[in-house]
Amino acid sequence: MEHNILKLKKQFPQDTANFLILNNTNITYFTGFDGATAFLVPQDGECVLYVSETNFEQAKHEVKGVKVEKLIRGQNLFQKICQDVKVSVNSKLSIDAVSIESWRVLAKIVGNEDFLVSSGDIVKGLRVVKSSDEVELIRRACRLADVGISTAYEVVEPGVSEQEVMTEIEYAMRKAGSSGVAFDTIVTSGANSAFPHGSCSKQVIMDGDLVVVDLGATVDFYRSDITRTIVAGKVRGKQQEVYGTVKAAQNLAVEAIRVGVEAAEVDSVARTFIGRAGFRDCFVHNLGHGVGLDIHEAPMLSPYSTDILKEDNVVTVEPGIYIVGFGGVRIEDTILVTNNGAEKLTNAAYSLQTN
Amino acid sequence: MEHNILKLKKQFPQDTANFLILNNTNITYFTGFDGATAFLVPQDGECVLYVSETNFEQAKHEVKGVKVEKLIRGQNLFQKICQDVKVSVNSKLSIDAVSIESWRVLAKIVGNEDFLVSSGDIVKGLRVVKSSDEVELIRRACRLADVGISTAYEVVEPGVSEQEVMTEIEYAMRKAGSSGVAFDTIVTSGANSAFPHGSCSKQVIMDGDLVVVDLGATVDFYRSDITRTIVAGKVRGKQQEVYGTVKAAQNLAVEAIRVGVEAAEVDSVARTFIGRAGFRDCFVHNLGHGVGLDIHEAPMLSPYSTDILKEDNVVTVEPGIYIVGFGGVRIEDTILVTNNGAEKLTNAAYSLQTN
Repeated sequence: MEHNILKLKKQFPQDTANFLILNNTNITYFTGFDGATAFLVPQDGECVLYVSETNFEQAKHEVKGVKVEKLIRGQNLFQKICQDVKVSVNSKLSIDAVSIESWRVLAKIVGNEDFLVSSGDIVKGLRVVKSSDEVELIRRACRLADVGISTAYEVVEPGVSEQEVMTEIEYAMRKAGSSGVAFDTIVTSGANSAFPHGSCSKQVIMDGDLVVVDLGATVDFYRSDITRTIVAGKVRGKQQEVYGTVKAAQNLAVEAIRVGVEAAEVDSVARTFIGRAGFRDCFVHNLGHGVGLDIHEAPMLSPYSTDILKEDNVVTVEPGIYIVGFGGVRIEDTILVTNNGAEKLTNAAYSLQTN
Repeated sequence: MEHNILKLKKQFPQDTANFLILNNTNITYFTGFDGATAFLVPQDGECVLYVSETNFEQAKHEVKGVKVEKLIRGQNLFQKICQDVKVSVNSKLSIDAVSIESWRVLAKIVGNEDFLVSSGDIVKGLRVVKSSDEVELIRRACRLADVGISTAYEVVEPGVSEQEVMTEIEYAMRKAGSSGVAFDTIVTSGANSAFPHGSCSKQVIMDGDLVVVDLGATVDFYRSDITRTIVAGKVRGKQQEVYGTVKAAQNLAVEAIRVGVEAAEVDSVARTFIGRAGFRDCFVHNLGHGVGLDIHEAPMLSPYSTDILKEDNVVTVEPGIYIVGFGGVRIEDTILVTNNGAEKLTNAAYSLQTN
């Protein structure tokens, strides 16, 4: 994580002497520890991790190379930090993420709101390009997601409930070594599969239902994301047609990925294809999003994105077609942007049919 | 959820004509739906749920009694809202939770920062007192947590890893009907059990290890929270002594719970007892916290809390003793504050020994 801190120091805004990290995921990015309250990065001198009494001994045990400071209960974090560092017009405090209430408390303590700089975009910019260590963790999380999808192909059948499918998927990923789920597993069947973020219910899967399975695993806080759509029982022609359209759109979008391309252009490749096939109004979400410590992070693959894809971005490509009353089809992979184009990190089989 | 909206309308700050809910958990509290972007509650007229295209059809299907508005991709949420409602000095906009960046965007759109009111405490105050429906959901989540603990008593033994215990616990809770985990399940063994929020690892449990198991289930977004401490194999005298102290402290704190008592006083009952037993510096966290849609919410049972317990608060009581090198013991239940004192909603057995 030390190289992440060095990268941040190179990007301090002018007149910033200290960078205060308050967002928990950002703290994890810089320290590998997710139980701290705040992390202070000075331009010069030692970084300080502020940890409650509850997690202090664990932090001392696990976090190396930074000073670990105990926050005593009843002590105000911002007051303590402002005792430790000088904040002034030439020595500003940058902050990654803060609520309006906390901003006001801090502004009062430092005496002038103009001594504070809201600088979340800088950390976001660092996190968007993954190091080889980060890619390796995401790669492992993707392999575990593949295990989840294999399990879905085995257990989806008429008569089984959405929740039963989810239970077996998560159990299999855990057994294979996942630290948790990257997000709430989605298993939606029949008409409910037309809701892209529908949740699992007790609903029993019926013969001929479309079943959308969207899941992710985690390894050392890093996440993966994959979707497959399966039919329980006999596949009908319309299902095959919609599936074929989504798969072809995904193929085209994956081929369009390369270093330097506009993210909006990649979205457009899939969206145009789906539109021409007659399903323009049925692709109701963005093509994809970055994946890392958060399940949704930069860059965004959407029509309105201003992001340009860079080497070592990790993104999803997940076109979908959703038809109210009929159901939905989504196909998604997690993808590494390389100098040779897209590399798929998820590798589960594509099939409308169960095993 | 309609009664929650009515309660909010009665507590609008002076000159507030509209209350904008941006925090996702608060939106769920008022609508029962967790896939929306914002929820607008006007003092007069119809409430509006703002939903992305992705989740629009699902929201229309699931949410009744409010207007569901589609957010088109590329459209600015705040601009849209400010087209829908008038914001002025006599017709202010209250907001539950907002980052400094969003606050500034909104202030620019409405033309004057003073037309905005940061009002998160009002919603927090509503959520702290549970309705009978909410209590019922938490009660069900607590029964599922009991299933998780029963499973721990069955599977903890020397030679099994922390992750294996966690995997079986979560599988059992899912099978019994849990919608998910209330938080990352904690299974820490041996010296690691001295870290209150230590995470599960591949570490194999050894004969004589203390094992802290802290878990929760969810039902319709509502959560439960329970901890038991178990010894794998033969129990030693010091383990028994520490366990007895923690259990007695918990008993005293639970007995101290009643409507109208200061939360700090309940914390003090347990803390004083543990201190007199010679473990003052080993109880390194607060006695407890509220539980509901969030796993940590008001009221806080801590030495510095200013909360007064009210009827239908739901709180944890979870004293612990943590000794570096030796291990930790924590015992926790989720408790309903009633006019007759504490009612335990979690009811798993208390025992240092496995089944």
